[in-house]
Amino acid sequence: MSERGISSAVIRRLPRYYRYLGELLENGEVRISSRELSIRMKVTASQIRQDLNNFGGFGQQGYGYNVRYLHDEIGKILGLDVQQTMIIIGAGNLGQALANYDFSKIGFNVIGIFDVNPRLEGLAVRGIEIQMIDTLEDFLRTNKVDVAALTVPKKNARAVATRLEDLGIKAIWNFAPIDLKVSDDVLVQNVHLAESLMNLSFNYRNRRKDKPSD
Amino acid sequence: MSERGISSAVIRRLPRYYRYLGELLENGEVRISSRELSIRMKVTASQIRQDLNNFGGFGQQGYGYNVRYLHDEIGKILGLDVQQTMIIIGAGNLGQALANYDFSKIGFNVIGIFDVNPRLEGLAVRGIEIQMIDTLEDFLRTNKVDVAALTVPKKNARAVATRLEDLGIKAIWNFAPIDLKVSDDVLVQNVHLAESLMNLSFNYRNRRKDKPSD
Repeated sequence: MSERGISSAVIRRLPRYYRYLGELLENGEVRISSRELSIRMKVTASQIRQDLNNFGGFGQQGYGYNVRYLHDEIGKILGLDVQQTMIIIGAGNLGQALANYDFSKIGFNVIGIFDVNPRLEGLAVRGIEIQMIDTLEDFLRTNKVDVAALTVPKKNARAVATRLEDLGIKAIWNFAPIDLKVSDDVLVQNVHLAESLMNLSFNYRNRRKDKPSD
Repeated sequence: MSERGISSAVIRRLPRYYRYLGELLENGEVRISSRELSIRMKVTASQIRQDLNNFGGFGQQGYGYNVRYLHDEIGKILGLDVQQTMIIIGAGNLGQALANYDFSKIGFNVIGIFDVNPRLEGLAVRGIEIQMIDTLEDFLRTNKVDVAALTVPKKNARAVATRLEDLGIKAIWNFAPIDLKVSDDVLVQNVHLAESLMNLSFNYRNRRKDKPSD
């Protein structure tokens, strides 16, 4: 199976498939038709078949999809079957919220939390002690880190990102409301909360008008 | 100017335009060409012209865009020129992080924070006292609330969403990793953190392979 040439729109939908299938699994469901999946996900059945055909199908005519198989295969495509490591830079509320979130279900273990605030030093979140950021170099010398979550204030975000890049980090999960300036060699996935709220605001303000078409 | 028939892809890009223009404003920039804006935003200049033409243009040939005018007009389209109110349900780390975030720049004021944990009662975040959730009915009777941010644990999210709907809330900013079951009358904007991390994971795992095309 090849991941080549798959549109990024499909890629963006995979995590949603994964989450839905995870819920079905939790409910003990063994198989599901593309029609049922389509009703749950509010996506057309043909869209689902088309999306999953990118990865070789998984479905059997008249049987539907095997929930666990499909869940696990999509997990593999997303790279969730391999244990990956994450550090969190910025141990404020948002950083601590991330540290408390159980990402181990999708293969990510938080192995370090860093901050500049000495009052946070040694405080543990989910069993992980907050370390001062000047220990980052040492830490990265002895620990393989796949992803760094960036939850520092906006004004520090670019400098910290550059430092992470210099230290060899190749994937940054950025929560600062700013576009980072890193080389193309470093993947950045942004979570721009204000933009999400603006989208909600737009839809809320326009709900009495015609709905935007897609 | 009409917002009718604008594709949701354009709508999704507007907050990003707004953020970039805000940065330009902060840097004291008065005008910008679609070419410069395109380089900064990594979107083609023709895409930018096309997007902004949906709203009547704003650009003048040979002059470019007036930064403040464009910023403010997009802000109006997004509904950011009107003061709106938000409450936060769930005063854990994530809820407190949202309460600490300054959304007033985009017109949103947090006017209430609610939780079920009595140990949090009366604690103030950014000057707003955390209240027990059983006061929500009273609160909503005397306060107009535009948006409720939902930062409760997954297992409680659907029940709280139903309660919010029953109390007349029409817009929910949902951070719980689950799809809420509310009527079409209630807008839901999801922030699914795990899905964002899965997208990063996919791209990270596939970076040595061919890049996904769009």
